[in-house]
Amino acid sequence: MRVDGRTNNELRKVHIETNFLKHPEGSVLITVGDTRVICTASIEERVPPFMRGSGKGWISAEYSMLPRATEQRNIRESSKGKVSGRTMEIQRLIGRALRAVVDLEAIGERTVWIDCDVIQADGGTRTASITGAFVAMAIALDRVQREKELPAFPVTSFLAATSVGVVKDHGVVLDLNYIEDSQAEVDMNVVMTGAGEFVELQGTGEEATFSMKDLQSLLESAQIGLKELFDIQATALGEIADKISK
Amino acid sequence: MRVDGRTNNELRKVHIETNFLKHPEGSVLITVGDTRVICTASIEERVPPFMRGSGKGWISAEYSMLPRATEQRNIRESSKGKVSGRTMEIQRLIGRALRAVVDLEAIGERTVWIDCDVIQADGGTRTASITGAFVAMAIALDRVQREKELPAFPVTSFLAATSVGVVKDHGVVLDLNYIEDSQAEVDMNVVMTGAGEFVELQGTGEEATFSMKDLQSLLESAQIGLKELFDIQATALGEIADKISK
Amino acid sequence: MRVDGRTNNELRKVHIETNFLKHPEGSVLITVGDTRVICTASIEERVPPFMRGSGKGWISAEYSMLPRATEQRNIRESSKGKVSGRTMEIQRLIGRALRAVVDLEAIGERTVWIDCDVIQADGGTRTASITGAFVAMAIALDRVQREKELPAFPVTSFLAATSVGVVKDHGVVLDLNYIEDSQAEVDMNVVMTGAGEFVELQGTGEEATFSMKDLQSLLESAQIGLKELFDIQATALGEIADKISK
Amino acid sequence: MRVDGRTNNELRKVHIETNFLKHPEGSVLITVGDTRVICTASIEERVPPFMRGSGKGWISAEYSMLPRATEQRNIRESSKGKVSGRTMEIQRLIGRALRAVVDLEAIGERTVWIDCDVIQADGGTRTASITGAFVAMAIALDRVQREKELPAFPVTSFLAATSVGVVKDHGVVLDLNYIEDSQAEVDMNVVMTGAGEFVELQGTGEEATFSMKDLQSLLESAQIGLKELFDIQATALGEIADKISK
Amino acid sequence: MRVDGRTNNELRKVHIETNFLKHPEGSVLITVGDTRVICTASIEERVPPFMRGSGKGWISAEYSMLPRATEQRNIRESSKGKVSGRTMEIQRLIGRALRAVVDLEAIGERTVWIDCDVIQADGGTRTASITGAFVAMAIALDRVQREKELPAFPVTSFLAATSVGVVKDHGVVLDLNYIEDSQAEVDMNVVMTGAGEFVELQGTGEEATFSMKDLQSLLESAQIGLKELFDIQATALGEIADKISK
Amino acid sequence: MRVDGRTNNELRKVHIETNFLKHPEGSVLITVGDTRVICTASIEERVPPFMRGSGKGWISAEYSMLPRATEQRNIRESSKGKVSGRTMEIQRLIGRALRAVVDLEAIGERTVWIDCDVIQADGGTRTASITGAFVAMAIALDRVQREKELPAFPVTSFLAATSVGVVKDHGVVLDLNYIEDSQAEVDMNVVMTGAGEFVELQGTGEEATFSMKDLQSLLESAQIGLKELFDIQATALGEIADKISK
Repeated sequence: MRVDGRTNNELRKVHIETNFLKHPEGSVLITVGDTRVICTASIEERVPPFMRGSGKGWISAEYSMLPRATEQRNIRESSKGKVSGRTMEIQRLIGRALRAVVDLEAIGERTVWIDCDVIQADGGTRTASITGAFVAMAIALDRVQREKELPAFPVTSFLAATSVGVVKDHGVVLDLNYIEDSQAEVDMNVVMTGAGEFVELQGTGEEATFSMKDLQSLLESAQIGLKELFDIQATALGEIADKISK
Repeated sequence: MRVDGRTNNELRKVHIETNFLKHPEGSVLITVGDTRVICTASIEERVPPFMRGSGKGWISAEYSMLPRATEQRNIRESSKGKVSGRTMEIQRLIGRALRAVVDLEAIGERTVWIDCDVIQADGGTRTASITGAFVAMAIALDRVQREKELPAFPVTSFLAATSVGVVKDHGVVLDLNYIEDSQAEVDMNVVMTGAGEFVELQGTGEEATFSMKDLQSLLESAQIGLKELFDIQATALGEIADKISK
Repeated sequence: MRVDGRTNNELRKVHIETNFLKHPEGSVLITVGDTRVICTASIEERVPPFMRGSGKGWISAEYSMLPRATEQRNIRESSKGKVSGRTMEIQRLIGRALRAVVDLEAIGERTVWIDCDVIQADGGTRTASITGAFVAMAIALDRVQREKELPAFPVTSFLAATSVGVVKDHGVVLDLNYIEDSQAEVDMNVVMTGAGEFVELQGTGEEATFSMKDLQSLLESAQIGLKELFDIQATALGEIADKISK
Repeated sequence: MRVDGRTNNELRKVHIETNFLKHPEGSVLITVGDTRVICTASIEERVPPFMRGSGKGWISAEYSMLPRATEQRNIRESSKGKVSGRTMEIQRLIGRALRAVVDLEAIGERTVWIDCDVIQADGGTRTASITGAFVAMAIALDRVQREKELPAFPVTSFLAATSVGVVKDHGVVLDLNYIEDSQAEVDMNVVMTGAGEFVELQGTGEEATFSMKDLQSLLESAQIGLKELFDIQATALGEIADKISK
Repeated sequence: MRVDGRTNNELRKVHIETNFLKHPEGSVLITVGDTRVICTASIEERVPPFMRGSGKGWISAEYSMLPRATEQRNIRESSKGKVSGRTMEIQRLIGRALRAVVDLEAIGERTVWIDCDVIQADGGTRTASITGAFVAMAIALDRVQREKELPAFPVTSFLAATSVGVVKDHGVVLDLNYIEDSQAEVDMNVVMTGAGEFVELQGTGEEATFSMKDLQSLLESAQIGLKELFDIQATALGEIADKISK
Repeated sequence: MRVDGRTNNELRKVHIETNFLKHPEGSVLITVGDTRVICTASIEERVPPFMRGSGKGWISAEYSMLPRATEQRNIRESSKGKVSGRTMEIQRLIGRALRAVVDLEAIGERTVWIDCDVIQADGGTRTASITGAFVAMAIALDRVQREKELPAFPVTSFLAATSVGVVKDHGVVLDLNYIEDSQAEVDMNVVMTGAGEFVELQGTGEEATFSMKDLQSLLESAQIGLKELFDIQATALGEIADKISK
C-alpha cells in the first residue's frame, strides 16, 4: 500500500470548482489530493506581435506558486527579478498542450491567457494545472463563442494530464504525491486527449534509467488515470462538455 | 444610499477563514466584500543580516496580486522582472504596521514572513491584507510560543486597517469598494490598535485637498469600522484572542 | 532645547536659490539646515501613453541621492539595477502632491518632469524636495505660459511640506533633523496648500503608536512651519508668486 | 527521399573533433550535418551550495547560440539581460541527462561545468549538444581520474541523444534537420544509455497528437540512430572508451 | 576665434571649490566653463574580494549625470535598470587613472570610493571628473594619513586630464566645449602626471582619421592646458600640495 | 627573446579563414597565435531608431567570449543578466573603428551587425576582433553591393588593429600574448587605416606611466605589425581587396 493508502493505479481525490473567481472569463480551483491550483482563462482581443495578421488566435500560459504553497517558504520570482528555468519549462508545457486541442483559426485574432497559480503544493502541480486550465479555457471559449457568435466551438477534444512513476518497493504508480515524487526513480508526465492520443510525453530518469518495458507499464497506468480525469472534467463543464468530442 | 446599498458608516461583509492552507504556520483567507486575500505567516529561524546579533526578531511582508484578480488582466511582476512602486509601498506599510504591535525582543532572533496574495480585488486590498495578516501572524506566533516555550505572548495589541474617503454626493464613507475608490476625492487608510491608538495614517487628496474638519469626520468613520474588525478578528482567533490585550 | 539649539516649533534655516542650473526650464537648490537638494523641472512636449489624447498634462517626479549625501556611502541604485522601495514611495509622493495644485488641463498635453537629487542629507529630504520642487515647477510653468501663451497660470495654489514628530523628552517637534528623526517615536509628513488644505498626511508610529490628541498637536506644529515655508517660496519666486493665489 | 537525400532511418553525417580548444579540461567540436556545437567540460574544485558537505559532485550545463548561428540573427541573451525559457529548458535537460551516467560520489566534491555553444544551427542542436558534451565530459573526467587518482572511472555508461519525428508525406524520420523540424507534426528527443535504457523521452505533438503505435515507430527509429552515435563517440574517445561499459 | 571667444590653446575658466559637502572624507565642486561636477572621495576600511589579504588598497570610481545636466533630459540609469556602456567606460577610466598616482600598498587594505556626479554638462565631463577627483582623493588621503598615522603620503604625483581635438576651420583646439566636441573630427583625452608622463591617451577619429603629425600637435596643446590645471589643483589643495612631488 | 621565441617587432602567426559559417553574409575565423575569434557580419535592412530617415546606414558591434575561452571558466554575461564594462568598452570600440572606413551614406538605410565571439583567448582579443571583423564586413558589403546594385563599394580603406606595449626586460614589443599583456607596464591598442592614418589610439599605463619617447617607439612598432596585417587581410579577401584603396 502507498504512503497515503492508495493502490498503485489509484488517483488522489480530484475536485474541480468552476467559476471560482469573479473577474476572469473562465476560472476553476482544482484540488488533487493536497495540491490546489487556481486556474484562470482571460480573453484578450489581440494576439502577440508574431501572430498579427495571421487570422489565428494564440494561447499563452503562466504558472506560479505562492511563496508558502510549499513546506518551506520560497522566495518570490518577482523579488528575485527573474523567472526560474523550472517555471518557464512548465509555462511552455501548459501553453503547448492546450494549443493542441484548440482550433486557433476558429478563435480568430484573440489570445487566451492561462494563469495557473498554485496555492498549495503536494506533487503534480504541472499536471493539475493542465487539467484545471483545460476546464477554465473551455468555459472562457464558450463565452467567447456565445458573445462573438463563433460558428463552431473551437475546442476540438478533451485534454488532461497526470504523472506516473517508478517508486522503489512499489513499482509503477499513478499520480505521485510529493513524497513519492521525491523518491521516484523514474518520473513521467503524460498529456493526452479525450481520444487517447498523446500530446506530450516527458519521461525522466532521476539519476536512473528506464527500459522499454517500464515505459509500457507507465503508459498503461497513465491511461487509467486520464480516463477518470476526463469524466471529472466533463462533470465540471456540464453542458459545455457536450460541445467537445470525446 | 451607496452603489452597493450600504450606509456611509457600514463595512462590507467581512469573513476570515483561518488555517486556509496546510503548510504555513499561520494562514487565513480574508473576504471583504468581493476583495479576497490569502494571508500567510511563515516562521524562519533567523533574521535578516542587519538584525543579526541584536537578540530581536523581525517581521517582513510581501504583497502580490494574481494577474486576474482585477477586471483587466495585469502582467505579472515576475515577468516584468521588477516589483512596482505601488507593491513596494504596500509591502513596507504592512510590515511596519505589524511590527508596531509585536514585541520583537520577545520573539527572539526569528523572522515572521507575511505573504498577502490578493486572489480577487474590489478595493481595499491593502487594508484587508493588514487585517488578515494580523490574524495569520497571531496564529503563527501562538504556535511559536507553544513550541519554543516563549514566556509571554509577543503580540501586544489587536491591529486592523480600513479605508475611508470623501466621495462626491455621498460625503465621508467607510470601507470603499473599487468603484467608490476610483471616484473618491480624498482617500485615507487608517491602521489602528485595539486600544484605539493610530499606527499609520495615510490621507491623500486625489487631485483634490481636504480640510481639518474633513479629517475629523474621516477618522470618526474609520473608528466605527475598526471596532467591528477587532471583533471579527477576535472571533476568528478564538482562544488565542484572550492572550491579546484589547 | 533641541540638539541643534532650536525650539520645538522652529524650522531649520531654509534657503532657496533659484535658477541654480543652466539647462532646465526651472531649477533650485534648496537648503534646509544641512539638507541640500537640487530640484529641477523639465518640460516635455508630450504625455505618457496612458494620458495621450486626454488633452491634459502630467507631472512625474524622480528622486535620488548622491552616494555620499549621507554619513555612510550608499550603493547607487543604477549599480544595483533597481530602485528601492523607499525611493519609489518618495517619487510617487512628490508627483502626487504637485499634481494637486496644478490645473492639468491648463498645461495641455505636456509632461513636467521633476527631478529631486539630494546632494547632502540630514533628515527631511522628501519634504525639502516637495518644497523646492514646487518653486522649480512654478518657474518652469511660468516660462511655458509665456512661450506658449497659455491663457491662465496653471498653478492653483502654493504647496509646501514639512515633517513633525514626537521625540522622547521633547514632545512634539517641527522639522526633524537626522538625529531627531532616528529617535522619533512618531513621524509625520504634512503636505499642505497655501490655503491651508491638506494634500497628503502620512503619520507613522515607529514601533510605537499615537493618539488623537498627539495628532492634533502634530498638525498644529506643522502649520506653523508651513506658513513660514510659503513666505520663503514667495520670496524666491518674486513676481511669479503674484500669479498664485495664497 | 528526404529533402537532403537521406532515407528515413539515416543519420546526417556526424563528426566529433576532440581537444578542439586549448584551455578546457575536455572539449569537442561536434558536427551533425550543418549543425555545429562547441562542447567543453570544465572542472571546478567545489560544488554548488546545496551540495556542500554531501561528499558528492555535480554536473551543471549551459547552452547558448552565437547570434548568427541561425538564418536570421538573434539578439544575444546577455543584451536582453535574461535567458529565454527555451535556453533554460535545454540547459536543464543536458545537465540532467549527463548526471544519469556519472557516479557523482566517485567524482568527489567537484563540479563539471558543461558549456554547449552552437556556432551553426540546422536542427537538432540540443541532441548534438548532449552527444558532444558526453565526449567532452569523459575526456575531462579521465584527466581528473589520472590527476586526482580516483579509484574508478566515474562514467558508468555511454550516453547519446537524437531526435525523431513524424513528417508529412514521409512518416517517421530520424535526425531531423531544420526544414524537417519546422514541418514535423510530432517531434521527439530521445536520450539513451549505451545499454539501451532511456534517460529522457520528450515527445511533443506540434499542434497535433500521436498514437501509441506512432510512439513505437519513433522509438525504433531512434534506437537505430543512437547505436551509430555510440560507435562514433567510442571512436572519438579512443582508449578512454574502453573504460566505459557499453 | 572660437565659439566662446577663446584662443586655440586656452582653457575655459576652471574653479575648484574644496570641502563642498559635509559628509565625505574629501569633496570638491569643479567648474570648467559651464561643466560642473561634484567629486567626492569616501574611505572604506576594506577592499573588494579580489584584493583581500593582499595588503594593498584599491581605488574604485563611479560616474553619473543628473537627468537634467544636459540640454535634453536623460532617463536615469537607475530607472533603466542598467548602466550604459559610456558610463562604464568613463568609470573604468577614472579609477585606472587615479590608481596610477597612488601607492596602493601605502594606503593599506582600504578602498577609496570616488563619485563623480555631473550636475551641469557642457563638454569635457570625464576630464573635469578626473581633475576634480584627484583633489578630492588627495584631501581624503591626507585625512587618512593623519588619522591612521600612515608613514608616507600615498599620492605619488599630481594628475589631471583635459581634452584636445581637431575642429573644422580651427585646427587643433584645447578643452573642447559641447558645441566644439560635437563638431570635432578628432577627439583626444589626455591624462598626465605632474611629471609630464602619460597615464592615458585616448584618441578617436569621429568618422575621420588623424595622422602622426596631427597627433603631435594635439599632444603639445594638451600639455599647455595640463600645466595650468596642475597649478589650479595645487592652489586648491593648499598645504596638502606640498606633500606631492610635482 | 620573448616568452614564445618571437623578436620584439614580430607578430604572432595570423590566419584568416573566410566563409567559416553558413548563414551570415560575411564570416571569418581569425587566428592570432592562440587567440581565435569568430567574426560575422549580418545585414539588416533597417537602421536603429536614432538613424531612421537619415538616408545613412549604421554599423553596430557585439563582442563576447565563450565561458571557457580562458584559463579559468568565466560566468556567462547572460547568466549574470548584465554585460560587463569591459565588454561594452570593446563593443563600442569595434563599431566606432569600422564606421571610420565605411561610407555610411553609400550603404543606405541598412545596419551591419558585427559579432565577434572569442572561442579561445590568449591576449589581443579586441584587436584580433577588429582585424577579423573588417574582413567579414567587407565580404558582407561586397554581397550587398552586388545584390542591391550599389553604385560604389562603400568600404573606403583597409582597417586593422594590433597591440603594442612596454614589457619589463624587453622594452617595446608588438602583439602581446596573454603572459606579456599581464606583465606589461604600458599597453596600447592602435587601430589604423591602410593609408597609415590613426582611427583609434588607446594607451594605458598599468599602474605606471609613459613618456613622449615611449609613445614614439610604440607607434613605430605598431606600424610594422599593421602593414603585415593589411597584407594578410588582402590575401583573405582576394578579388574584393581590389575594390578597396590601400
